[in-house]
Amino acid sequence: MTYRRKIDLALEAKELAEASAGELSPLPGVKAEESTLFGFPLTRVDILTPEGEAALGKPVGTYLTLTLPHLPREREEILEAARGVAAMLEQLGTLPETGPVLVAGLGNRSITPDALGPKTTDSLLVTRHLTRTTEPSLSGLRPVAALAAGVAGTTGMESGEVLAGVVKTIQPVCLVAVDALAARQQERVCRTIQVSNRGIVPGSGVGNARLALDRDTLGIPVIAIGIPTVVDAATLCMDLLEAGGIQDFDLSVFRREGAEWFVTPRSIDSEVQLLSRVLGLGISTALHVDFSVEDVEKWIS
Amino acid sequence: MTYRRKIDLALEAKELAEASAGELSPLPGVKAEESTLFGFPLTRVDILTPEGEAALGKPVGTYLTLTLPHLPREREEILEAARGVAAMLEQLGTLPETGPVLVAGLGNRSITPDALGPKTTDSLLVTRHLTRTTEPSLSGLRPVAALAAGVAGTTGMESGEVLAGVVKTIQPVCLVAVDALAARQQERVCRTIQVSNRGIVPGSGVGNARLALDRDTLGIPVIAIGIPTVVDAATLCMDLLEAGGIQDFDLSVFRREGAEWFVTPRSIDSEVQLLSRVLGLGISTALHVDFSVEDVEKWIS
Amino acid sequence: MTYRRKIDLALEAKELAEASAGELSPLPGVKAEESTLFGFPLTRVDILTPEGEAALGKPVGTYLTLTLPHLPREREEILEAARGVAAMLEQLGTLPETGPVLVAGLGNRSITPDALGPKTTDSLLVTRHLTRTTEPSLSGLRPVAALAAGVAGTTGMESGEVLAGVVKTIQPVCLVAVDALAARQQERVCRTIQVSNRGIVPGSGVGNARLALDRDTLGIPVIAIGIPTVVDAATLCMDLLEAGGIQDFDLSVFRREGAEWFVTPRSIDSEVQLLSRVLGLGISTALHVDFSVEDVEKWIS
Amino acid sequence: MTYRRKIDLALEAKELAEASAGELSPLPGVKAEESTLFGFPLTRVDILTPEGEAALGKPVGTYLTLTLPHLPREREEILEAARGVAAMLEQLGTLPETGPVLVAGLGNRSITPDALGPKTTDSLLVTRHLTRTTEPSLSGLRPVAALAAGVAGTTGMESGEVLAGVVKTIQPVCLVAVDALAARQQERVCRTIQVSNRGIVPGSGVGNARLALDRDTLGIPVIAIGIPTVVDAATLCMDLLEAGGIQDFDLSVFRREGAEWFVTPRSIDSEVQLLSRVLGLGISTALHVDFSVEDVEKWIS
Repeated sequence: MTYRRKIDLALEAKELAEASAGELSPLPGVKAEESTLFGFPLTRVDILTPEGEAALGKPVGTYLTLTLPHLPREREEILEAARGVAAMLEQLGTLPETGPVLVAGLGNRSITPDALGPKTTDSLLVTRHLTRTTEPSLSGLRPVAALAAGVAGTTGMESGEVLAGVVKTIQPVCLVAVDALAARQQERVCRTIQVSNRGIVPGSGVGNARLALDRDTLGIPVIAIGIPTVVDAATLCMDLLEAGGIQDFDLSVFRREGAEWFVTPRSIDSEVQLLSRVLGLGISTALHVDFSVEDVEKWIS
Repeated sequence: MTYRRKIDLALEAKELAEASAGELSPLPGVKAEESTLFGFPLTRVDILTPEGEAALGKPVGTYLTLTLPHLPREREEILEAARGVAAMLEQLGTLPETGPVLVAGLGNRSITPDALGPKTTDSLLVTRHLTRTTEPSLSGLRPVAALAAGVAGTTGMESGEVLAGVVKTIQPVCLVAVDALAARQQERVCRTIQVSNRGIVPGSGVGNARLALDRDTLGIPVIAIGIPTVVDAATLCMDLLEAGGIQDFDLSVFRREGAEWFVTPRSIDSEVQLLSRVLGLGISTALHVDFSVEDVEKWIS
Repeated sequence: MTYRRKIDLALEAKELAEASAGELSPLPGVKAEESTLFGFPLTRVDILTPEGEAALGKPVGTYLTLTLPHLPREREEILEAARGVAAMLEQLGTLPETGPVLVAGLGNRSITPDALGPKTTDSLLVTRHLTRTTEPSLSGLRPVAALAAGVAGTTGMESGEVLAGVVKTIQPVCLVAVDALAARQQERVCRTIQVSNRGIVPGSGVGNARLALDRDTLGIPVIAIGIPTVVDAATLCMDLLEAGGIQDFDLSVFRREGAEWFVTPRSIDSEVQLLSRVLGLGISTALHVDFSVEDVEKWIS
Repeated sequence: MTYRRKIDLALEAKELAEASAGELSPLPGVKAEESTLFGFPLTRVDILTPEGEAALGKPVGTYLTLTLPHLPREREEILEAARGVAAMLEQLGTLPETGPVLVAGLGNRSITPDALGPKTTDSLLVTRHLTRTTEPSLSGLRPVAALAAGVAGTTGMESGEVLAGVVKTIQPVCLVAVDALAARQQERVCRTIQVSNRGIVPGSGVGNARLALDRDTLGIPVIAIGIPTVVDAATLCMDLLEAGGIQDFDLSVFRREGAEWFVTPRSIDSEVQLLSRVLGLGISTALHVDFSVEDVEKWIS
C-alpha cells in the first residue's frame, strides 16, 4: 500500500475539527465537539451535508479520534484503553445490536508497522463457529468472524475482493475493518485511535484503483478503525522544509527503486503488539455486549 | 481438525494399490500401476467405476503417491523434488491449461505439523495482481492467487466457507488445496506426496460435518495435495498393540481434556519448512507452464 | 539433545517417592513427603546419604514435583501456578537471599517442545543492567540476568561452555537453569513442574558427554527447573508393549535417518507458551523478594 | 542502543576517503584508494599514524566499504555479493589462516532493522561442535562458533560481557562481530557493507559507557562487519534543515518518552533477511577456506 495515499484518507477527526474551528462561525453542515471517554480526550466530527463535504473534503459521516496520553503498557492501562475503544464504537452508533459481524485485519503481517490489522484479529474473541453448535449456554453470544485478508503482493487479490466474497457467504450485518494508517504529524503515531463509519480504502497501487470497503461496495455498514503507525518520510521532510520556507528541495532519494521510506519509533514492534491487543479487546467488548473487558481478556491468550 | 478423520480420507494411493494387488485377479473397476517420476517411485490408482468405489471404499478418481527416499535438504534435491510435484500435477491431467487458479493453504499456521498448507502459499509465484495490469510483458502469465484460509478456531469460519466466497469473486478455473495429513504408518510421514482430483475435506470437528472442497461444493475441479506430517498417537499405539495380539488396552490417556496427541519427528519444524518449499516450487512450475523450476525459484524468496 | 537421555535424568520426585514408598519400611537415607502448595499437590524427596543414592540411583539432593490439575489458561490460573513455582523455589532453600542470579534458558527455541527454556527467559523480570545505574529507587532490586544459551547445532558450543564463560564474567551467586524434559508417562507431559538443587545435564550427543551444569562444574549452586513436554515415542511404545507382555518388537522405524520421534499434545505450541509464562513469572517472583506476582506481571509484556 | 552514537562510530570508509580526498595534497598518515571486488565498488582507507587519527577522528586501522548497486534478491546476486564479502575479509588481512573463530551477532532480534547481526548467525556454517569429534573427514574444517549475544534490555548484560566470558572459555583466535548500523546518508542504507579491524562498540546508553569489543578488551583481533539499516530521523531532519540554511528548529518531537525515531525503507524486513544471508554466506566462505560460496550454501538452510 502507499502510505501517502492513506494520509489523504486518514480519519483525522482532530484536523477536521481544527479546520472547522478556525472559522469565525461554525462551518455549515459540520458539527465538531470535544469530550472525554474514560479519561481520554475524544474529538467527534459529524459531516452532515454536501456543504460540509465540500468544506472539509470528506464524505458525509462521523469521524472519532481518541488520544492516548502515552502507550498503554501495564495490564490495567491496556484494559482502560480497550474500554475507550468499546465506548467509541458505541458512540458511533453504527453497529447493529445483534447479528453476525465480520472483523477484517487489513495490511501486511510481515511488515511491522503494517501488521496492526492482522495482529488485532489475533486478540479477538471469535465465536461464530461456536454459535453454530446447539450448545444452549452459547446461545446468547453474537457470532463474530475474523479474517486477515492479506495483501495483493502475497495473495494476488485485493483485500476488498477477498472480503466481498466472504461477506456473500457468511452474510454479516456489519464489517469492522482495522488498518494501520500513516499520520501527517509525528505526535499522532501510535497515540491516536481513529474510528469512522465511512468505510476505508486499503492502500492503493500505482494507477490501480483499489476496491473501497464501504456500504456501496459491500451492501452492509462498514466501520473503519485505524491507528497511525508511521509518518511517510517524504511528507515529514516536506513539512519540515515548507515550515522553514524552503522550496524546490530534491526529495528524489525517497524514491530509490520505487521504495517508500517511513519514519517510525524504534519501539514500533512492541507498540504495535500492545495496540493490537487494545483494539482486539475493545472491539470484542463492543461486539459481545454482555461481556466486560475482563471477561473477554479471560478468553483470549 | 481431527487428524483421525484425515487418516480415513488420506490419499494413500499406495495402500489402495496394495489392497487391489492383494487379489488374485485385478479388482474390477480399479487400475493400479507403479512407475517413476524424476527417479522417485510413483503409485497411481484410478478408481473407475462404482464397483471400484465399493471395493476400495473411495470415490471414483485418480490417486497419486510420490515417495521421497529422504528429506530434500540441499538446493538441487529441493528442485528435483519440485520437478516431481510438477510432473505429478501434469500426469493427473485435471489442471486446465489456461485460466486463473486459486491455491488454498489449509491448516493452522501456528501448529508446526499443520502449517504445511499455509507455508506452501509463502513459496508460490503469485501473479494474479500482476496480470491485471496492462504491462504487455506479463500478458503470458497465468493468473495465480493464493489464500491461507485459516481454521475455524481463529476465524470463526470453515475454510470451505471462506474459499467458497473467494471462488465466487475471482472465478478460478481450478482450486489447488494443500493440506497436512495424518499417516497411518510412520515411514510415510514427511516422505510421501499425495495428489488426487477428488477434493478434500479440511479436518472435522466432533459431530460437526465440514464443508468438503470438491467439484460438487465449489463448481470447479479441485486438486488436493497433501503430505502426512504426523501419525495419530492413539492409532500408532493401537496398531502396535493389535499387531501384538493385545486387545482391550486402555488408551484413555490420549483423551486428556479432549486433547489429541500426535507422533512426529523431532525435526518437524525444518521438515515442514523444506517440504512446503518443494510444494510451492512444484505447484508454481505446474501452473506457469513456460517457467522452469529455476525460473520460479528466482522469483520467490 | 536426546530426550531419551533426559528421561534418565528427569527430576521425577514423584517416581522416587513411589519407589521409596513401595518398601515395607522407609528406604534408608531417603525422606519422602506429600503436601500442597497453593492447592497444587507437591511431592518432596530428599536423598540424604550415599545409601539413599544407591537405593534410588540419584545423587544426594532435594527433588520437588508440583502437579497441575490442568493447563493454566486464564490470567488468575497463570498467576496462581506462578505463585506455586515461587513457593517451590523458596521451599527448596537453595537460592541465596541476595546477590546477582543468572537464569539460563536451555534448549532449542526453534523446536516447539524444546523452546520452554528460551521462552521462559522472555517472561523474566531482568534487572541486572538497571541495578548498575546509580538510580537510588532501584537500589533494592536484585540483579537478575538471563541467557538463552542456544544449542550446539546452531552455536557450535555446548550450552555449558557458554554459561561457564558468562558465570566467570558476571559472577552470580546462583544459576537457575530451565529446560524442557521428556516424561516417561504421558500424563505428566505439561502437567508437572520439577525443581531440584542437583543441577542438570543439557541433552547429550552420541558418544559425546555434555558438560553438566552443577556446583562442581560452575562453582555456584545450580537450581534446575523443568517441565516435561514430550514422551519419547520409542519409550511410549516399549512401555505399551511390555505392559502387554510383548517382547522382541521391532522399533527400528523410530530410528529413520537417526531421527528421533516424540509424542506430544497437538496443542503443544500454546501449552509451552503458557507454561513458560508461568515459569518466568514464578522465578521472577522468587528472585525479587519484595515483589508479588502481580508486581512482576506489570513489568513483563 | 542509540543509533546516534553508532553514526559516530560507523565504519564509513567512503566518507573518510572523501574527507581525505578533499585536501589539496593527501592527508598525512592516511591512505585512501578505490577499486572493485567482483564488480562492486570498494573503498579502502588505512589510517596509519596518530597524525592520520587526528585528521580523520578515527583510530589507526583499516576501513573497507563495499557498495551494492541494488539489493541482491535472486540467488545468483546473493552468491555474488557473498563472494564480495568473503573477498573483503581476505583483503582486510586480519583473519588468521587457521584456528577457531567466534562470530557474534549483535543487536536485538525482535526489532527488525536491528536484527541483522542475530539473523546473520542463522546463515553461518557453524562447525566447532563437529570438529571436536574424531571423525577424520571433518578434520580439515575450521572450528566456527556463533552467538547472538542479545541486548542488555533482555539479558541484563552488555553483549561485551557475554562475549568476554565466552571468549575466555572457547579461546578463539579472532572475533567477527556483525551489527546493524545507522547511516548519516539515506542512500547508504542497506546498500553498503562496512568492514574494519578496529573493533566495535555495540550501541550505548545514556551516560552508560558500553564495553568496546576490540583487541584491548578481548585480547584477540576483532573484525567488525556492519550494514546501515536506518537513518536516525533527527539526523536526517537536521541535515535537511541545515542544508536549507535553517537553524534553531525544534526537534523535540523526536524525543517523545525518550523514544528514538528512525527512517527506514518500507521493505526493511526483506532487506534485512536478504542481507543477513549475504553476510552469513560470505563470512562462512572466508572462514572455511576450502569451501566455495556454493559449498557453504548447500549446508545452510
